[in-house]
This record gives sequence, C-alpha cells and structure tokens, in this order.
Amino acid sequence: MGLVVQKYGGSSVADAEGIKRVAKRIVDTKKDGHQVVVVVSAMGDTTDELIDLAEQVSPIPAGREFDMLLTAGERISMALLAMAIKNLGHEAQSFTGSQAGVITDSVHNKARIIDVTPGRIRTALDEGNIAIVAGFQGVSQDKKDITTLGRGGSDTTAVALAAALDAEVCEIYTDVDGVFTADPRVVKKAKKIDWISFEDMLELAASGSKVLLHRCVEYARRYNIPIHVRSSFSGLQGTWVSNEPQGAQKVEQAIISGVAHDTSEAKITVVGVPDKPGEAAAIFRAVADAEINIDMIVQNVSAASTGLTDISFTLPKAEGRKAIDELEKAKSAIGFDSLRYDDQIGKISLVGAGMKTNPGVTADFFKALSDAGVNIELISTSEIRISVVTRADDVNEAVRAVHTAFGLDSDSDEAVVYGGTGR
Amino acid sequence: MGLVVQKYGGSSVADAEGIKRVAKRIVDTKKDGHQVVVVVSAMGDTTDELIDLAEQVSPIPAGREFDMLLTAGERISMALLAMAIKNLGHEAQSFTGSQAGVITDSVHNKARIIDVTPGRIRTALDEGNIAIVAGFQGVSQDKKDITTLGRGGSDTTAVALAAALDAEVCEIYTDVDGVFTADPRVVKKAKKIDWISFEDMLELAASGSKVLLHRCVEYARRYNIPIHVRSSFSGLQGTWVSNEPQGAQKVEQAIISGVAHDTSEAKITVVGVPDKPGEAAAIFRAVADAEINIDMIVQNVSAASTGLTDISFTLPKAEGRKAIDELEKAKSAIGFDSLRYDDQIGKISLVGAGMKTNPGVTADFFKALSDAGVNIELISTSEIRISVVTRADDVNEAVRAVHTAFGLDSDSDEAVVYGGTGR
Repeated sequence: MGLVVQKYGGSSVADAEGIKRVAKRIVDTKKDGHQVVVVVSAMGDTTDELIDLAEQVSPIPAGREFDMLLTAGERISMALLAMAIKNLGHEAQSFTGSQAGVITDSVHNKARIIDVTPGRIRTALDEGNIAIVAGFQGVSQDKKDITTLGRGGSDTTAVALAAALDAEVCEIYTDVDGVFTADPRVVKKAKKIDWISFEDMLELAASGSKVLLHRCVEYARRYNIPIHVRSSFSGLQGTWVSNEPQGAQKVEQAIISGVAHDTSEAKITVVGVPDKPGEAAAIFRAVADAEINIDMIVQNVSAASTGLTDISFTLPKAEGRKAIDELEKAKSAIGFDSLRYDDQIGKISLVGAGMKTNPGVTADFFKALSDAGVNIELISTSEIRISVVTRADDVNEAVRAVHTAFGLDSDSDEAVVYGGTGR
Repeated sequence: MGLVVQKYGGSSVADAEGIKRVAKRIVDTKKDGHQVVVVVSAMGDTTDELIDLAEQVSPIPAGREFDMLLTAGERISMALLAMAIKNLGHEAQSFTGSQAGVITDSVHNKARIIDVTPGRIRTALDEGNIAIVAGFQGVSQDKKDITTLGRGGSDTTAVALAAALDAEVCEIYTDVDGVFTADPRVVKKAKKIDWISFEDMLELAASGSKVLLHRCVEYARRYNIPIHVRSSFSGLQGTWVSNEPQGAQKVEQAIISGVAHDTSEAKITVVGVPDKPGEAAAIFRAVADAEINIDMIVQNVSAASTGLTDISFTLPKAEGRKAIDELEKAKSAIGFDSLRYDDQIGKISLVGAGMKTNPGVTADFFKALSDAGVNIELISTSEIRISVVTRADDVNEAVRAVHTAFGLDSDSDEAVVYGGTGR
C-alpha cells in the first residue's frame, strides 16, 4: 500500500458538513493502509468573498498583497479539515504551501511551481500523520513571498506533490463523476470515460473540457503520475488518466476519446495582409507582446490577383479588446487593410489517439457536421485532434451530432450534473 | 524622525471603511517623516466566526490546527490594509508573524515570544515600504509551527517589534481615548490619564483595567519602549505609558493614578487548616499543578483554642470548578475541614506610586469605603497598590466613592464609551 495524494475542491468542503464528510473519506483511505496527503482548496465562496473585500478597499487589487489575502482561504479549510480528522481519532497536521515546500517563481496571482521540497510532509507522514496541504499556493524562490498559482492551481499542487513524494496515484475529487465523452449538460448520452491517456486528456483540456486543466495534466504526464478524477459525493470509480491502463481500466482503447467544445473564444480576422515573409510574424509579435494567448491560427492562400491574404486567429473573448488595440497600433507597420472581430463563434473538437491510424475520422467528422447543417468557418488539426470553428448557435447541435456519429452515446440518458473543479 | 510602531485592534479595522480610515492615518504618519510598522488584529468578528466554524467540525478544537485557523484572520486584515495603503499611493508590504521574525515557544493558543528577528521588516522599511505585520501570531522556535499568543497578543506583538526595531514609540490604537482613572462606564467623572508610569500601569492591568494587558506593559517596561494608547477614531493625544514623562506629558505626578475594579474573580476559602508549616504550600501546590492562576491570598492568625486557621484566595471564576476538584482530591492529604466557594465578589484596587510616601492613603481608602457603607472581606497590598474584596453588588458604588475621595473626578461629566482592545 503506497502513498496517495487526494485533492478536494471548494465545493467538496463548502461547509462544516462537507468538511466532516471529506474527513471521513480521508480516514477510510488511511484505514486501507495508505499514507495520505490531502490537498484542499478554499471553502465554497471564500475566495469570492475575499476578492469582494479587496475590491472594496482598492479598485485594482493585485500582486503580492492579493496573494497574501487569497491564501487565507486555504488556511481556513485546511485547519478545519485537520481538526475534523483529529476528531475522528486520527492524527493530522496542516501545512501551508510554503511549509509543504511548494517553491514557485515570483509571478504573483499566476505563479508556476519550479520545485517541491516536501521534507516536512515526509516527516509528518513518517510520524503517522495525515498531511493536509493548502492548494493553490506556494512561496517564491527569490523573495520568499507568498504566491498563488492561478486558476486550477490546487490540482497542480496535488500533482506536483504526488510527483515529489512518488505517490502511486493523485486522486482529484470533484463534484462530477469523472471525465465524460462530452459535456453532459449538452449531450445527455455522454458517457463517463474509465481510462484516458495523458495525450488525449491534454487535447480535451486544451479544447474546452473543464474537469482537468491542461497545466495539471501536463505536469502529471511529465512525472508519470496517474490521476484518478472522481466524485467526492458518490465514492464511485471515476476516470483514470495515465500512460497505460491498469487492471480494471484495461478496456480496449477507443478510437475517439471524446468531443469537447468551447464558446469562450472570439475570432479576429486580419484582412488584406501582404503575402510576403514576416507579415504573420509581425502580427503575432504584436499580440504576444501584450501577453495574449492565441489558440487557432488559419491563413488561406492569397488571391493571385491582389497578392493579399487574410489571417484569422481565435483567442479568449476577455482579451479581444486588448488584441484589437494592439493590432490597430501596429496597423501601418504591418500594412493590413482592416480587422474583423467576431465573438459569436464556438469551437468543436474531436479528440482521440485512434485518429492516427484511422484516416476516415476526418471525413466522418465533416460529414456529421454537414448532415446536421452546421457550417464550418475554420479548421485546425493536430495528430490526435481535429477542431472546427462554427457559429456559436450551432455548437450544441454540432457536439450532439458528432457524439452520435462516432458511437459515443450511452444507452442510458439519465441526466448527470456537471460542473467545474473550482480552483 | 524615528521609527513608529502602530497597533490597530479589530474594532478599528472591522470593515472596508475602517480599513481605509486606518490606512489614511498610517499614511499621515509616514508623511510626517516617520518609518512606520503597523501591527494589525483580525477584522471585527472574524475570530469569533472562525472559532464557530471550528466548533462545528470538532467539539474540542485546540492546539496546532486551531492556531493555523485563527491566524487566517490577521492574514486577511493585513493584506487588505496593505492594499488600501497602496491605493493611497504609498508602498506597503504585509508580513505574517513568521515572516516578521516573531519567534515563540511551542505552547499553542498562548505562546510566549522568545525572540524577534525582524530582518525582513528592516529591509522593507529601508526600501521605503510601510510594513504591515500580523498581530497575535508567531512561529515556534523548535518545530516551525504557527502559534498564537493568546488574549491581548497583538499588543504584545507591537511592543516586541518596537523593542526589536528600537522604535521611538509604540502606539496602541483602540476604540477609547486612553487609560482612565477608573472605568468610565462606572465612574462618569473618570478622567483620561495623560501620563502613567510602567509600574502604576502594571498594577492597574493586574487589578482589572482592560485597556492594556499586563504582559504587554511588562514587555514595554523591560525594553523601555514608551506606549501611547490612543483612539483610532478621534486622533486626540491619549495616554503615554513610560518610565518618565516627556515634554507635554510633564505633569506633576499624581499621588494616585487610578481606581481599578474586577468582578471576574471568585473566592475560595479553605476552612480548618492545621496551623503548621507546609499546609499553605500543600494547598497552593495542588492548585498550581492544575495550572490555575491565583490572585490574592489571605491567611488569618489561627484561633489559639483550635490550632486551626482559614486560608482564602481569589482566582478567575472560569477556573473555580477545577480548583475545587483539585482541592477535594487533596483533602485528606492536606487535612482541612471544608471548602467554601463564593463567586459573588468584586475587587477594588487603588494604584499610585505616591502611596509610598503618603502614609495616609490606606486610611483614606478605608474611610471612603466605610462612608459608602461597603464591607471589606479581604485586603491585600503592594508597595503602590491596595486592593480589597467586597460583595460584587457593592463594587460600582465603592469605585465611585474612592474615585471621589481621592480627588480624581473631572469637572466634566460627559459620557465616554469604553471597551476592550480586542486581542
């Protein structure tokens, strides 16, 4: 019996009852003979309440002090969780990110973990304790300031600790039963996936699946830490994410893992770009300098008559205004005609390693969309993913059509509650 | 212009408005040319809310995890205060007790400061920052665990930091205008004291005055740090506590500093104690072993006929049950007849260095009580204090009578709001 890292999101510890329920689950794991390290997020709405307070004292709260403030949230939940476990007759100690050895860079509000030195956690485990660690936070290597890891940070904390402690699994407890073949709010017949490879999970996360964030899966793949995504309410087996299926997960690998969609992006088209070397570089340099993350990029062949081409790309809606501003500033230097901005788009992605060896997948995908009357505006592919941009209004219908066409529908059509994992 | 340490209690930072008001006061001090270190308590009711949560998950929250939980309170207030200061255009950084170098022993929930190593605070000040430090908390020397200092701990943090940083003054901001000659809720004509010696302040604190706790004053006296107790609302000069009055505080020292009272104690009388060596020691050993703090002790001469005597002592009401239990257990070993427990008592104390050279004070004190028809049950004295125990019902009347008899009444009789300083 090895070491297990468990992560519980804010909705699992939203109140005293939730904390007691989670404590019992942790103690059960300990009773099974495991050493247990628990990573916990702030209780329910705590983070929102702290942000609200911050905005009341300062219109632009950010940086070092904002991190100091937000980390109070996990401090509360982790101490309460340790108390609840002790109340069940087991030893527990809570540790801040800093105490747990989560070392980060100095980028406040979205720091990256650069090292984990869990000496105190090891000692606590060796002394028979369950170790409770604050998710989402660390301490900066240079200044020893408190940092936070940004959205999904607690999942990353859990995986990083699992890697540093050589855990046998990192269990991510959430309010859904696992990773599904599509968003169950859109596709009633979506099925829970029993096992999925790191690669497919990375593509799903990059394509709009919210259950696990890309960064966390990437970390798990790098250190080969199996992730088990499961519900803190049901106790059922969830979805295993790993290199190779083990034991009960040993199912024949599906050609297609799932269908993801994303309606949080907008599309910018740069119209009338001179078709000569360096033009695309100039456009994306202007956008990158503003620290805007772009997703898909498509350039058509230029019209022979004009020597001009159009370049389209997608990016988070929240960054649309800034990107337009930056491009307008660089307009004369780059030399394009105009910009078109469109935030009524959606993206549908089909993900599966089986694509590599099944050349018919792309054709079947387009046929399914065509049969559903969905018009395609942009296409982009990777080795194991194909994504299209459509009108936002068409997204749900498109996802359902593709899900059915690839035989992913379950026989049952019972509704599944689906939500995010918090931070 | 030197370094000033300011401490703000929970009532001063109870909400966003309070935090902004305090931020402005801090910035004004900085503008006057001072380096400023601020010690802050948790906002208003935060601590009570955290305790309430703890009790929901565990009936006996205490120790290491309880300290971890409670320290979230100052983390929130200090980060918000730093943000509010930055919003006014000044640089500020917040520090936990641990970051500020507040090193304590390992007694959770009531740790004692054993060293202060404020290297990071010095650096922050040298870089032009206002340093905000979490009150009430530190880190244990041996295990590096988070500790709390117990009631009044933020005041002690402030004085300890002032000593370690060689501050010119430690300002304790609270919701009253200073230290008064008596509790203004009882004596409407109580006067604010402009200056009081450490010694007299120590006696007042030990006798029931709540404005400053004994431990904090003791620390200030040991390191000779002047304390200025003042209102965070009015901005008026408050009460200076120091070795010698300075400048505007140079008033002729009063014979009597003030009248304190305390109705939080109970009296235990051990009846029929054999009058032989070692009996008192056995009684107080039994009580001390249970870690009960006793206050006054009185033993009368024994009746010649029986060779038996009575020993009375006072102690906090909250510890009365435990003391009775311990004494009953030791009854046969000690050999007394019975125990009497009385929690309807009050204590009135007259404090002033002038007593040493004014032998009439004691007589005047008893006459004032007698004229007011107050019966005295126990008497205890120090060089600069005289205390009596009376019926609890007589306390207010006794305090007023003594206050008037020693000429402490102000001419004004406007009501003054009086309260505690929080923790």
